[in-house]
Amino acid sequence: MLTYDFLDRTDETLYEYLYRKIRQDILAGRLQEGERMPSKRSFAENLGISVITVETAYAQLAAEGYLYAKPRSGFYVERFGQSMLVPEKPAEPEDCADPGGVHDAENSRGLPADNTPLIDLSQSGIASSMFPFPVWSRLMREILRTRKDDLLKRSPGNGVEELRSAIARHLLQFQDLRVSPKQIVVGAGTEYLYSLLIRLLGHDKIYAVETPGYRKTERIYASNAVQVKAIEMDRSGVNIEKLRASGADVIHITPSHQFPTGITMPVSRRGELLSWCSEENHAGRRYIIEDDYDSEFRLAGRPIPSLMSIDRSGSVIYLNTFTNSVSPSIRISYMVLPEELLREYREKLGFYSCTVANFEQYILAEFMRQGYFEKHINRMRSYYRQKRDRLLAALRNSPLGPLMKVSGADAGLHFLIRIDTGASEEELTALAEDAGVRIYGLQHYGSELFDERADRESPAAGALQENGKPCMVVNYQGLTDEQIDILGQLLARAWL
Amino acid sequence: MLTYDFLDRTDETLYEYLYRKIRQDILAGRLQEGERMPSKRSFAENLGISVITVETAYAQLAAEGYLYAKPRSGFYVERFGQSMLVPEKPAEPEDCADPGGVHDAENSRGLPADNTPLIDLSQSGIASSMFPFPVWSRLMREILRTRKDDLLKRSPGNGVEELRSAIARHLLQFQDLRVSPKQIVVGAGTEYLYSLLIRLLGHDKIYAVETPGYRKTERIYASNAVQVKAIEMDRSGVNIEKLRASGADVIHITPSHQFPTGITMPVSRRGELLSWCSEENHAGRRYIIEDDYDSEFRLAGRPIPSLMSIDRSGSVIYLNTFTNSVSPSIRISYMVLPEELLREYREKLGFYSCTVANFEQYILAEFMRQGYFEKHINRMRSYYRQKRDRLLAALRNSPLGPLMKVSGADAGLHFLIRIDTGASEEELTALAEDAGVRIYGLQHYGSELFDERADRESPAAGALQENGKPCMVVNYQGLTDEQIDILGQLLARAWL
Repeated sequence: MLTYDFLDRTDETLYEYLYRKIRQDILAGRLQEGERMPSKRSFAENLGISVITVETAYAQLAAEGYLYAKPRSGFYVERFGQSMLVPEKPAEPEDCADPGGVHDAENSRGLPADNTPLIDLSQSGIASSMFPFPVWSRLMREILRTRKDDLLKRSPGNGVEELRSAIARHLLQFQDLRVSPKQIVVGAGTEYLYSLLIRLLGHDKIYAVETPGYRKTERIYASNAVQVKAIEMDRSGVNIEKLRASGADVIHITPSHQFPTGITMPVSRRGELLSWCSEENHAGRRYIIEDDYDSEFRLAGRPIPSLMSIDRSGSVIYLNTFTNSVSPSIRISYMVLPEELLREYREKLGFYSCTVANFEQYILAEFMRQGYFEKHINRMRSYYRQKRDRLLAALRNSPLGPLMKVSGADAGLHFLIRIDTGASEEELTALAEDAGVRIYGLQHYGSELFDERADRESPAAGALQENGKPCMVVNYQGLTDEQIDILGQLLARAWL
Repeated sequence: MLTYDFLDRTDETLYEYLYRKIRQDILAGRLQEGERMPSKRSFAENLGISVITVETAYAQLAAEGYLYAKPRSGFYVERFGQSMLVPEKPAEPEDCADPGGVHDAENSRGLPADNTPLIDLSQSGIASSMFPFPVWSRLMREILRTRKDDLLKRSPGNGVEELRSAIARHLLQFQDLRVSPKQIVVGAGTEYLYSLLIRLLGHDKIYAVETPGYRKTERIYASNAVQVKAIEMDRSGVNIEKLRASGADVIHITPSHQFPTGITMPVSRRGELLSWCSEENHAGRRYIIEDDYDSEFRLAGRPIPSLMSIDRSGSVIYLNTFTNSVSPSIRISYMVLPEELLREYREKLGFYSCTVANFEQYILAEFMRQGYFEKHINRMRSYYRQKRDRLLAALRNSPLGPLMKVSGADAGLHFLIRIDTGASEEELTALAEDAGVRIYGLQHYGSELFDERADRESPAAGALQENGKPCMVVNYQGLTDEQIDILGQLLARAWL
């Protein structure tokens, strides 16, 4: 008769042990399909356990479909067909395209993925070793210990109150933006929030994005089946005349530090944009989506007030994320809706569940409430400032120094170098790649919406280049000091 | 000193016995919070066991968060706050418009939110006190300790490999569904995945949902600006003729346990649905979205193979969530794409970032890999079975017993009672509310798409009612034993 010796039983009950062993034997094919199981009584006797234990194990296995009962006959092994009993294949390697962060620089061109460059200036890697794991871990335990009851409740659709309050306090203190927690909607990443906004503002609206810019933003709008227009930048940000001519209803911008141009939109342009919103001759409402993705990392200079904080017309929606500022291992972003949109939000989207686990929300709320977020941002800022200064020095002291001009280095985590060697941006990219450095020019970040033109040069990038001189984008966030120290030499050798 | 006599030790090891007894004493409050435990050596001497045994028990208790160690001082009883030591309160009702779990029963009609019913049978509350916090907490710490580097990397867009592999193994073992991890896409909730699917299959397609059914599913499709049709159910599930007549391209169904009818779609209807997918006269591809939201909680009977497992045409997309089966405090769902759709997914949506933090994904992967998920599901299943049996007995033994017929009680976490008192469903709802019980009939879950008709009765609900007898929906997941014991009397007094 079937026998188990119970020697390898760990801390499970007798019934659990028996259930598990029989199940294993069925799955491994050691118990044949259709085979009759020992009677409960004799099996119990044979194993030296109670009949109840056998009965419970059989009942469980029957409930799960491993055994079936025949009245007045006993239990039999279920017939599964082939699929269940053959050993599992090892997982196949993934070839899946884009690991994607919120604001990944585009990496679909250039080197194949396995040909990793020595130094990558195309990606906004995060210096995440700075993440305060011990604090996070302690807060996690604290929440688990003290808030069990709250953890068992579902998060409200717009996020838990504590987190929304902490965000409102942060916005007041750091952005001088006074909003009520009820205006805040928490979501799992800004990409998710973009899609939510489309559902709020309407699929029939025309959405505009900046070019050059994050190509991903454009793709997200396009994949939501709305009409997208790419609006060219001039030296103050998105060009208002071109915006007006595009017929767009909604413009998605990054005014505090535009990627990739590094432009901080001056107050005058901000005013023009707000005026565009309230122009009378327009049929429907116009909106600005203010994507403030790296405003925490302004490294010098006075802050310029956010568009939302100077808007009186209720036309600005503010967006930000903690993925850049805290860690890629948390996935929390938020948007702030103008009061005027709240009722519509509740009616149209209030039924959606929150996409962020309440547990994560409580941890972040405590992280902010206890001052760790501020401390973390400050540490990161001085860390990044030191990186930037070291990199600028390395470049200036290299043979490239006299040939290049740097811009946009104060506002956030990348800057531009204008370089005049006679080579085009594409040639510079190719030469750098041969030397193990991945770096792209402004044109690379131009909208795909322009690809159809006979002139493949992105006109927007063109307008920002000085006398057509190439302008390369340097993302330095993830670089080590060692990489920084050799970068000037590497690029000089490649380009000169 | 703390003493245990080991007399009631059964067949567990000394360490297991000691671990269990101390744990009991902590939970019962016999060991005070903050109390210092005896030193290992003196405790071992006192009990006549080895120091190693005490050490192992302490280590296990510390790992699970019952004790904590102070360097050079010893072990202390953890401070839990109140929540762990007092008996569980029922989860409070949410006051937010719709706190929304993936499959909340609709609660927008009926009592105002602040008029909380004594017993709520309209909500699929989760018995979340069963959630194994100590294990989860230990895994969290384990991941933080051992996988720092991985935590600092962004999750691939479709989820981390470990989790997708664990899900694939689970699907093979429990659903007899053989898929490759690369077919799996992890996302923050099924609602998010519905929207992603619309972007994959197309905004120009016509989507169909079941009626009666989860009204929320219908609303999500509608808010994504696609055309939605509600297809009436017959006794085997969604009616194929009506589906065909609707012109739908994609049908979203819950075949393993339809809400609210409780119907488990028989194999014959599954075959018909698959045939519908491959009918030649149709212009574009047809797809089935198989939403398997509570299949883990089948309480009796043999599983019917999932549609995806019997499909050979690559037309079925399988969806499931861990929010129902593990805890509302995690927010992880997944979909399985047929191989044929993978290329399209990567091209169209591969650039999207994953909406679930990698940290949460790693914890869940370990939870599954180490067998805790299976154990948890089994515990929950027997817990729910006991609840259901108690509730059915309470109802049958009440004066309502002879007047009611129960159906759909084996497949998942709600069932139907057909009741003949001469009153309509709406009248029964109103009478029950006066008695403090929130309960709705099938018609309440009818599609809003039918609201325009002169005949406000949902035709679908009508087809499922027996001779027009009212049919009420009982969600018993979150009920306490005390609530169950009075429910029969309450309803009998209200309805008879």
